[in-house]
Amino acid sequence: MAAIFAEEQFVFEPKELYEPIDYTLRLGGKRIRPTLLLAANALFGGKEEEVLDAALGIETFHNFTLLHDDLMDRSPLRRGQPTVYTKWGDNTAILSGDTMFALAWRYFLRKPSPRLQEILQCFNETAIEVCEGQQKDMNFERLPIEGVSIDDYMDMIRQKTAVLLAGALKIGALYAGAPADEIEKLYRFGIHLGLAFQLQDDLLDGYGDTAVFGKKTGQDIRDLKKNYLVLRALQIAAPEQKKALANLYNDASIDEDTRVVRVMDLYESICLKPEIDKAIDAEFEKAAQCLDGIQAPEEGKKPFRELMESLNGRKK
Amino acid sequence: MAAIFAEEQFVFEPKELYEPIDYTLRLGGKRIRPTLLLAANALFGGKEEEVLDAALGIETFHNFTLLHDDLMDRSPLRRGQPTVYTKWGDNTAILSGDTMFALAWRYFLRKPSPRLQEILQCFNETAIEVCEGQQKDMNFERLPIEGVSIDDYMDMIRQKTAVLLAGALKIGALYAGAPADEIEKLYRFGIHLGLAFQLQDDLLDGYGDTAVFGKKTGQDIRDLKKNYLVLRALQIAAPEQKKALANLYNDASIDEDTRVVRVMDLYESICLKPEIDKAIDAEFEKAAQCLDGIQAPEEGKKPFRELMESLNGRKK
Repeated sequence: MAAIFAEEQFVFEPKELYEPIDYTLRLGGKRIRPTLLLAANALFGGKEEEVLDAALGIETFHNFTLLHDDLMDRSPLRRGQPTVYTKWGDNTAILSGDTMFALAWRYFLRKPSPRLQEILQCFNETAIEVCEGQQKDMNFERLPIEGVSIDDYMDMIRQKTAVLLAGALKIGALYAGAPADEIEKLYRFGIHLGLAFQLQDDLLDGYGDTAVFGKKTGQDIRDLKKNYLVLRALQIAAPEQKKALANLYNDASIDEDTRVVRVMDLYESICLKPEIDKAIDAEFEKAAQCLDGIQAPEEGKKPFRELMESLNGRKK
Repeated sequence: MAAIFAEEQFVFEPKELYEPIDYTLRLGGKRIRPTLLLAANALFGGKEEEVLDAALGIETFHNFTLLHDDLMDRSPLRRGQPTVYTKWGDNTAILSGDTMFALAWRYFLRKPSPRLQEILQCFNETAIEVCEGQQKDMNFERLPIEGVSIDDYMDMIRQKTAVLLAGALKIGALYAGAPADEIEKLYRFGIHLGLAFQLQDDLLDGYGDTAVFGKKTGQDIRDLKKNYLVLRALQIAAPEQKKALANLYNDASIDEDTRVVRVMDLYESICLKPEIDKAIDAEFEKAAQCLDGIQAPEEGKKPFRELMESLNGRKK
């Protein structure tokens, strides 16, 4: 899946619109969503050539959301490269993003399918949930740290991250003509996988090896971002520590590096890491259970088990 | 068509995402695109209840483009009310707009149709052309007035304005199962209608009655916007006048009101208005010819003839 867009052509006229799209789609990435879509299709005996366009479509959509999210979050870098809005300006980022959303649809509309309406509804409802998740994430920014519950946070990451993994799986299975109850299990597998993936991302922000993870440790703490670590810490900390943590997050005058050190020290003192590991393992476990329950050849489940193992390995 | 969204529900959670959508869709407007879609469907004997959702979809898409265009163009008002970005900020305008694009798709995906793939392709390719047209419009802003030809301008307004009218007609006809050659004639009717409509908008900017038109006269001149009037004026003016006009557009130090008066004086001196009237009439005439050529009952063409008359009446 690495060279997913290698043979695709994106530079049409006007080039001011399409060059940023070409740039974005060639930045690379793990291509997890198209990989999941293809594997789900294969699991239920589908033909790869019938879903390759849908795989490109789901990755194009994902990259569209990253493009607009980077603009809204004012993130200067993506995969180590300047983001579209920093390179070409806000207006180009808006309009090239809009066009990428339509290009995702173009992929989905290339091939007929007896279940086309259902497939497209799944894609579109997923897209709407991703937008809702991003809005909830932005809403959290304006709330004090005590104003966001773990439940709210899990609901937000479910929409912002997990539903797209689950949707990719469902679409692949729909193309293969899988039965509804098996698709439902696969979808739930995707949700738990997505939650595990995001919780692990949060963990790596605090405890990751910068060289392996590719991001500066503690960036969420610097950005005062409400992630699973700080919300769980608030939940398990004693009243005194809870107050100290809230102060570290609510006092904008504290130097960033100092804040990272103090917050991480506090995490250590309350033994936060094992708690987070437990939560991640629980999501992986639920995902594995969903996968076990699917009536399909074990051979077809192998790519999913390998993906879980490789994701789980990220924390080591 | 006036109360088109009266019974629709747009305020879901999170409300920060959906309130701007509700606000935008209830701002009103002439609802020309859904009206065209319904009339095209009726022209070929389609059933209204089968295309009502598509009509809502095309209007939702149109309003999405206005929402993002207003942000990119930094337009403070739309239909006399504050635009979404001025009321809720840039990020909300971006994300609510993205969601509106998906809501348009939700309408299109509500009902099955034997021609669903073709209908959705038409909608999506139209959407892509509208984005391309908006990019070309933004490109023109960075060019000197002499750098934009009439052909470039007509190509831009074809994509930015005309293809959506034509696309709405085509979609309505596709739902009714109309034959391809008749759809092609109706599409060309929509293109010429759209061009006439935009050229008239340009004319009204210079010569419209503010009370009737609802906009301040000469706004394009104030904004140094390359519209059909100034491009045609450059084409027909003598070398001396051409130079004077270019100076008025390229010299940012001239007071806005002075610029409007001088540009309009220059238009008068070269008898520009009759030239513009001629160009508009030519587009209406081409539109009428396309309509005449369609093999369908005259009764069904009546709404189109009435629309042309009412649009044509705008200039009086």
